Amino acid sequence: MSNTKACLILLLAILLSSGLKAQEPIAIGEKHKIASKILNEDREVWIHLPKSYNDSAITPATYPVIYLLDAEINFEYVAPTVDYLSRSPFADMPECIVVGIKNTDRTRDFTPTRSSKKDPNNAAKTLFSNSGGSAVFLRFINEELKPYINENYRAAGYNILVGHSFGGLFAAYAFLQPEKSFDAYIANDPSLWWDNKTVVHLAEKITSHPNHTVFYLGQANNEEKNMLDSEMAHAIAEFRNTVEKHESLRWGYQFYDKDDHGTVSYPATYDGLRFIFNHYKTDIRLVAKEPAALIKAYKAYSDQAGFTFLPSETYLNKIIKFSKDNNFEESHDYFLDLKSHLYQH
Amino acid sequence: MSNTKACLILLLAILLSSGLKAQEPIAIGEKHKIASKILNEDREVWIHLPKSYNDSAITPATYPVIYLLDAEINFEYVAPTVDYLSRSPFADMPECIVVGIKNTDRTRDFTPTRSSKKDPNNAAKTLFSNSGGSAVFLRFINEELKPYINENYRAAGYNILVGHSFGGLFAAYAFLQPEKSFDAYIANDPSLWWDNKTVVHLAEKITSHPNHTVFYLGQANNEEKNMLDSEMAHAIAEFRNTVEKHESLRWGYQFYDKDDHGTVSYPATYDGLRFIFNHYKTDIRLVAKEPAALIKAYKAYSDQAGFTFLPSETYLNKIIKFSKDNNFEESHDYFLDLKSHLYQH
Repeated sequence: MSNTKACLILLLAILLSSGLKAQEPIAIGEKHKIASKILNEDREVWIHLPKSYNDSAITPATYPVIYLLDAEINFEYVAPTVDYLSRSPFADMPECIVVGIKNTDRTRDFTPTRSSKKDPNNAAKTLFSNSGGSAVFLRFINEELKPYINENYRAAGYNILVGHSFGGLFAAYAFLQPEKSFDAYIANDPSLWWDNKTVVHLAEKITSHPNHTVFYLGQANNEEKNMLDSEMAHAIAEFRNTVEKHESLRWGYQFYDKDDHGTVSYPATYDGLRFIFNHYKTDIRLVAKEPAALIKAYKAYSDQAGFTFLPSETYLNKIIKFSKDNNFEESHDYFLDLKSHLYQH
Repeated sequence: MSNTKACLILLLAILLSSGLKAQEPIAIGEKHKIASKILNEDREVWIHLPKSYNDSAITPATYPVIYLLDAEINFEYVAPTVDYLSRSPFADMPECIVVGIKNTDRTRDFTPTRSSKKDPNNAAKTLFSNSGGSAVFLRFINEELKPYINENYRAAGYNILVGHSFGGLFAAYAFLQPEKSFDAYIANDPSLWWDNKTVVHLAEKITSHPNHTVFYLGQANNEEKNMLDSEMAHAIAEFRNTVEKHESLRWGYQFYDKDDHGTVSYPATYDGLRFIFNHYKTDIRLVAKEPAALIKAYKAYSDQAGFTFLPSETYLNKIIKFSKDNNFEESHDYFLDLKSHLYQH
């Protein structure tokens, strides 16, 4: 067989196996590998970009970043949840980049202290023998992952951490460190019972936070009151009683009566995001009638958050269209001006 | 340039542009095209398969199918929501295939009658001039789409329809037809005001449904009481008062105080699925201690649903492992037997 012929057959095979596929996949993100020197291992991160990120019709914008633990469990529903909550013109929150961190050893990464424990159901089994790596894992996030995201994506500089169970314990740990790592935290049914409530005791040692910090705690209804659940509930109650008294903190809490430890993350992440971005939402019908209300609302929200949030170009385009369709001529001109002021092409 | 050389350069270009990509996409479904004779057009459907669908370690199973309207708006969050709610061992519902139907002309497809109306904000504009196609669209679903799904996928024969706004109107319309199309319906803030409440009047003409039918209605809090919202709220109230008296119907309703028309679908679809599969959930810790409780619970749920649901092989594997880890030896043997009885390889 000639080289040309072999080459053509190979080309055909490639085209048949990929290019000519009838079904187009529906993708919500991409998996990336980061070589971590701090952890001395490769880490997989799952990255979701907002719908408008590559929209060539608008000026490239920057976006808050949500760092999400246990990516393999949470990424697929959290990324579309964020898209849903940030849809124009009904947006409860701004569009965000979602960065899911896949586990290699979650017990090691999410626990702040070394604590070997016997399995209560099986005394022959030792649990958590590789625990105690939170400080190192937080360094990985702050010194390797965040720089990677900030260099490769248009990150705005407003960062949120979301974790569940041991991941919630890690979120609480990161929240209580002297160095500020995130602007807002969501901890879902956090394992605060860990190692004689070591993170609860951390919380007792401090009284305030960097201005504008937000913490949302979602607690599940773990019906079967076995020892672990009971310890868990007590630890969460103590943490709650302590932290809600801290200064310079916007604190949110909800008990999920219909959810257990395994299901609470879905509603609590949704509610937590809505809590963090409480008062962000504006009503297109109202602002189209009263244009100055828009900037006023964004100013008030930005003051609350300690970070400047602007109406997105996508939202302004919707308001401009709505104003035009409804013959609000002055509003139409006002928002055209505002758009060219905020987003100069 | 020789043919061989040109061919090699082309090969290299293809490999560089696709095969060697460092980033792996995270896909949650595939887009398919169906040539519809009934609608005389190509229709795009977005298909999501459960995690276990292609798991070679378990016996191929069948799955209920969720038909989802407005795929382009709802598919990306509904498909992962279903995965989340059906995760073993915390499953609130069985794993399902999700079939999202993308729109070509949603006003045509989702409205049961022809009704031209002037835009209340702009008298020069006529709305809905192409309306009235629901009967044809329902035929497309029953006679073309369902057969396509049933032939190409392992569909169990339990079907659910989910729609919002005009899509909710269509769900209510389909629910009220003499021919049974679905086992369960979720209608989120349905546009029941349509054409002088024509679908509400349909509901007044009947008194019962095929046994075990489930209907869940989620209503948004549309604060600004303009004419449309007020008509909408009245129509929903009339529909509710009528349908909740129908016989042979499991009826669910919730008002979403914190959600408007644009945001209600997310929590209401989640709650609607949980309502449809109410009492489906079993607690792994309880059944591992009392094995007979599992089949009893599935039997009770199947009786309620009018359809046989069995514990999935994935769930049985988790119970078997849990029983072994916790030294419940009798349970371990019982569930191994049950598994080989239900799923013979």
